[in-house]
Amino acid sequence: MSRTAPSRSVKPVRHRPTLADVARLANVSVATASKALNRTDRVSASTQRAIVAAAQQLGYRKSTESASASSTHRRQRSGLVGLITSDYNGRFALPMLTGAETTLGASNHAALLMSSHGRPALERSHIDRLAAHGVDGLIVVGNTTNPRPPLDPKTTMGLPVIYAYDPSRDPADCSIICDNVGAGAQAIEYLLSLGRRYIAIIAGPEDFQAAKDRARGAWRTFTLYDFRPIAVLFDAWSEEWGERAAQLLIEQHPHLDAIYCLSDEIARGAVRGLMAAGKRVPQDVAVVGHDNWFVFAANAHPTLTTFDNNIPMLGKMAARYLLDALAGRPHHGVFTVECPMVVRESTDPDRRTPLESTGRIFSRQSS
Amino acid sequence: MSRTAPSRSVKPVRHRPTLADVARLANVSVATASKALNRTDRVSASTQRAIVAAAQQLGYRKSTESASASSTHRRQRSGLVGLITSDYNGRFALPMLTGAETTLGASNHAALLMSSHGRPALERSHIDRLAAHGVDGLIVVGNTTNPRPPLDPKTTMGLPVIYAYDPSRDPADCSIICDNVGAGAQAIEYLLSLGRRYIAIIAGPEDFQAAKDRARGAWRTFTLYDFRPIAVLFDAWSEEWGERAAQLLIEQHPHLDAIYCLSDEIARGAVRGLMAAGKRVPQDVAVVGHDNWFVFAANAHPTLTTFDNNIPMLGKMAARYLLDALAGRPHHGVFTVECPMVVRESTDPDRRTPLESTGRIFSRQSS
Repeated sequence: MSRTAPSRSVKPVRHRPTLADVARLANVSVATASKALNRTDRVSASTQRAIVAAAQQLGYRKSTESASASSTHRRQRSGLVGLITSDYNGRFALPMLTGAETTLGASNHAALLMSSHGRPALERSHIDRLAAHGVDGLIVVGNTTNPRPPLDPKTTMGLPVIYAYDPSRDPADCSIICDNVGAGAQAIEYLLSLGRRYIAIIAGPEDFQAAKDRARGAWRTFTLYDFRPIAVLFDAWSEEWGERAAQLLIEQHPHLDAIYCLSDEIARGAVRGLMAAGKRVPQDVAVVGHDNWFVFAANAHPTLTTFDNNIPMLGKMAARYLLDALAGRPHHGVFTVECPMVVRESTDPDRRTPLESTGRIFSRQSS
Repeated sequence: MSRTAPSRSVKPVRHRPTLADVARLANVSVATASKALNRTDRVSASTQRAIVAAAQQLGYRKSTESASASSTHRRQRSGLVGLITSDYNGRFALPMLTGAETTLGASNHAALLMSSHGRPALERSHIDRLAAHGVDGLIVVGNTTNPRPPLDPKTTMGLPVIYAYDPSRDPADCSIICDNVGAGAQAIEYLLSLGRRYIAIIAGPEDFQAAKDRARGAWRTFTLYDFRPIAVLFDAWSEEWGERAAQLLIEQHPHLDAIYCLSDEIARGAVRGLMAAGKRVPQDVAVVGHDNWFVFAANAHPTLTTFDNNIPMLGKMAARYLLDALAGRPHHGVFTVECPMVVRESTDPDRRTPLESTGRIFSRQSS
């Protein structure tokens, strides 16, 4: 009943075994299987062994893959790229789409966005639709910063995938994220350079990667200069929490002279709490936020010094790396985009207009 | 050289004339041309004459249209609907997409979103791409509330189109918008019911339809009860303007006891201006906003009474009307979706949790 006679396989399968079959049997991504079989030293020895065993069991031969890979490359290109977002309010998805379109447009591609609301079943069904309509590749846009499970190779059917904002848990995939560790490190560097010595951190929920990473970056700078924060408080991404936390801090630490808030919402609440207690911002207490969510940061009173998530740049990078993958030059690992600091009145009373943000990127492999 | 012999035409054309040709010659939309030729009494007599003349000039025959229309209906359906948004930050586009998907998903359709940044050339090129990939229809999502030029029939190629948030200028098209007039009327009704008598309006820029409509609705209620606002100030959609306007109002109108702000950003600024001047909100001055932009309205201090733009419901309605058009039952005109009022602390000091929003819709033809 087998349609093609297996040539040298130990155990015949009903169709010519593909790299995806090997990946499925070894329970790894296609990218990982490819790397293992190409011996790129990017997978652990035990994973390598499991993949090679799976390939032998299925009678997979690399020539099969080459044929299939080149048929993929010969596949009629549609010039369309699918973005799948789990974002509800569009704060990440639209700037990401805009950035991606800038890069894609320059090579005559266009982007289509579909919304999965973070529901895996809907995500799969959207990808099926996009694949059926011939998209050339996928960008998966998150909204939490938390690592997510990689897409099943059965779902992506060999389409190249870039993960943006929320990285894939599989380091062999290509993920583009904000450099939250770098932002945290720079925030404390900046506050120390202003002469502030009694610095507290008001964070969001502890189970968000962004909260962990920004706090970790801050800690790195504290350690470097042999300082310690006077307090690190985790709770919620809300103004209410920022206000409550600021009140707690003032009661317990009268010398408090700076707060690094891990979101602009928290920062606005903190400013309110400080002002209600008769503190001047920034003269008595300097406040730094994160997100550069314009409606919050630039409309605040005082306006907020903050870090820009640089989402359009994430979209551009994701698109560029996807085009590279389509051209046969895939990237593997987690790449970061710098969050430029935007200085406003909450740390600098004379700063009426924000510093030009540099928009520089640096990327590094953290796999 | 004509490929098909014109049967009874006065002036032969190179292809069999279609309804789109007639519409183009008469400089109207296909929908308007259809209505004129079907004598539905929905177009003015002069437009009707122009369209009939164009049809005669081209030798257009209705049988041609029926054939073409039924071929459109017979066209292989993809189950895909294209959304084109001019929104940059996603505040309107993503909730609209979510609402549309709810309705479309129930009839096994899915939605693809593309971003045009309000650039007509990009909008056209996106529609070309979507049409080439077989979408069944289009939803055009605005972000200003201002009426927009209808899409060129040459661009839409007979695909049904629904305009959402920003209506089409052609009343023969189908547009779904927020009932801003109704929201304005209800805002003043509510403030009067609270016993407030010295009511001011702080508006956004005068050239936004939303500002005009909300102010017009407010004026309608004032007139009904034989009241007048103490001031109506137009300027910008910003917190800074809200704050400045509130300060002006307090200086000039010491009896001021309520402000209807035409956006939540303005309302937040107004609250700040009032509090800085020693006024209590809502005990001395009640404040109402508009948008129910959650991060602004629910995080404010006091939380803001406001009107919800009900964007997911706009998306649902747009999808439903598009499905109707695909089933051969098109709608024509401008339909409104109610903006439910959400009562919070800025008008009601005991209101800790917001009133359940009703989510009711009423739609009416305003063409």
